[in-house]
Amino acid sequence: MISQKAKGSNAERELVKFFNEAGWGAIRIAGSGSSRYPSPDILAGNAVRRVAIECKITKEQKKYFDYAEIEQLRTFSQKFGAESWLGIKFPGEEWHFLMLEDLEKTGEMFAVSVESAKRKGLTFTDLLQS
Amino acid sequence: MISQKAKGSNAERELVKFFNEAGWGAIRIAGSGSSRYPSPDILAGNAVRRVAIECKITKEQKKYFDYAEIEQLRTFSQKFGAESWLGIKFPGEEWHFLMLEDLEKTGEMFAVSVESAKRKGLTFTDLLQS
Repeated sequence: MISQKAKGSNAERELVKFFNEAGWGAIRIAGSGSSRYPSPDILAGNAVRRVAIECKITKEQKKYFDYAEIEQLRTFSQKFGAESWLGIKFPGEEWHFLMLEDLEKTGEMFAVSVESAKRKGLTFTDLLQS
Repeated sequence: MISQKAKGSNAERELVKFFNEAGWGAIRIAGSGSSRYPSPDILAGNAVRRVAIECKITKEQKKYFDYAEIEQLRTFSQKFGAESWLGIKFPGEEWHFLMLEDLEKTGEMFAVSVESAKRKGLTFTDLLQS
């Protein structure tokens, strides 16, 4: 039985593969989340754009994020010079990519539902052309 | 006794710290060297620059690199939109950063000696201002 963490890593590798096949440079970041400095899960770039992505794969229909997690992504992107994106994969759906402004605020957390991901999110192809 | 691999990781963390303290965003890359896609050891950026660095720490006075290793760095940097740098730390020396053009070609390998690193290489402070 494959762990949720391993599923997350595989999902990240899949995204890195997509970016590379599209001609971008893309990498997974070591110790993301445990580093003492803010960092996203994936960084990808081409000649003109750089995107920092926090990736989530979930079995639920709605996914919650800590403020701190989102703030880390925002801080890193500002320092590095990258766009901030949240990549999310719900069961049976393709990847959707949301801007931080499109996350729903629920008390102490941010949230994304399947419905809002499909309504506001970009597909991978859309993300490359956004 | 700390392994050479652990020393390498610690050296990379030190560089990430230096960049962060200088206000840049910087990250270590997961599975660098073992990934199926080309990638450097460290990526750092600020509002205007992005640098991809292959890092080496050595006990020798001269360090050799495979053509493939250097070619991977070059390929990644072209796709991602980053400058390519080789960061090297010789015993008792501070970090030196060399452009790929400054590596010495020796048969099947590239090489850097302590002398050439000190003559042609940039210090960390110089790198930030280059």
